Amino acid sequence: MLENIKPMDIEKRSFEIITALLGDKKLAPENELVIKRAIHTTADFDYADNLVFSDGAVQKGLAALRSGCDIVTDTQMAKAGINKTILAKLGGQVHCFMSDEDVAQEAKQRGVTRAIVSMERAASLEKPCIFAIGNAPTALIQIHKLMNAGKLQPALVIGVPVGFVNVIESKELIIQSSAPYIVARGRKGGSNVAAAICNALLYQITR
Amino acid sequence: MLENIKPMDIEKRSFEIITALLGDKKLAPENELVIKRAIHTTADFDYADNLVFSDGAVQKGLAALRSGCDIVTDTQMAKAGINKTILAKLGGQVHCFMSDEDVAQEAKQRGVTRAIVSMERAASLEKPCIFAIGNAPTALIQIHKLMNAGKLQPALVIGVPVGFVNVIESKELIIQSSAPYIVARGRKGGSNVAAAICNALLYQITR
Repeated sequence: MLENIKPMDIEKRSFEIITALLGDKKLAPENELVIKRAIHTTADFDYADNLVFSDGAVQKGLAALRSGCDIVTDTQMAKAGINKTILAKLGGQVHCFMSDEDVAQEAKQRGVTRAIVSMERAASLEKPCIFAIGNAPTALIQIHKLMNAGKLQPALVIGVPVGFVNVIESKELIIQSSAPYIVARGRKGGSNVAAAICNALLYQITR
Repeated sequence: MLENIKPMDIEKRSFEIITALLGDKKLAPENELVIKRAIHTTADFDYADNLVFSDGAVQKGLAALRSGCDIVTDTQMAKAGINKTILAKLGGQVHCFMSDEDVAQEAKQRGVTRAIVSMERAASLEKPCIFAIGNAPTALIQIHKLMNAGKLQPALVIGVPVGFVNVIESKELIIQSSAPYIVARGRKGGSNVAAAICNALLYQITR
């Protein structure tokens, strides 16, 4: 039986249903909107358990966005999904170097993933950045290496690559690092989840 | 413990792990690559159960793509995720009307979703199309209406919107229709799954 509902009310109603389905599940108030938006994007309630946050991660992300930080991501899909209108109003933009011809060439020559080269490119950006990684564990591994080498200090790492090879391990590296993080522990995640978490932050600032 | 693996081998290794984790689960051979790619994209094994296929859906999708059909989708994220290089070699392109200014205006005036207006636009395309719907249940409902009115005959409907309002019902409409379909029954799906299913078809033709 189709529900008769106005377009503008669909999202509100969806969040009400998510809240009802979460039942007695306790979510930390500061993380609640991020968790619920990840569930909204996937209909997968595992995100109520697998999303972990460093202390004050959401506040640090919001502060960075309010100061006009950029977002670096590892897929064109996440770039497409992030609300670039709000980000631009705050003074930020989204970077994704994955499809750049010179990145592809360098990765091939060095026998490494394009994600590794992309993160090196990102480390040379002169603005503070949030890293939203939805696909490549090698991106997280490289962020970790660049941080250890003193070459990168992310404003926040959204570490939600999905998959079966080195994904779990790459997320644990970020959890053990000094970076503020929002990580989906385990195998799950994706470009859609990375974009949803960025938007959950952006919508707390202005919508 | 990080696994040392070459970039080009990561996907192959991922599919081996998925196959191992599926264990004794029986998948119809013609649907197997679609199901495994949906799992690869989400790390969510629910797709081994919730993906349902009309008779010969995969073969019909492959035939349409080989004949140079276009793909219509309801999100820029799915458009970003579909392999447009392979599609173009076959003579096709991806359409997404959701961000078109005139679509937004007409939707506002009529008090309907942009997805509804977008599907009406798509129905006037003169080429056969595969519809890959990863977000808006109203897109599936409108496709169903247009088919019933004799105004649309999709080559294949990939019906995988995600969410909590009218999502389940919209998918059942497609399952009961005369269209060839690949549908993720229930609440789950997403732009990433829509793109993954398109790519699972494209990669069977050429890669």
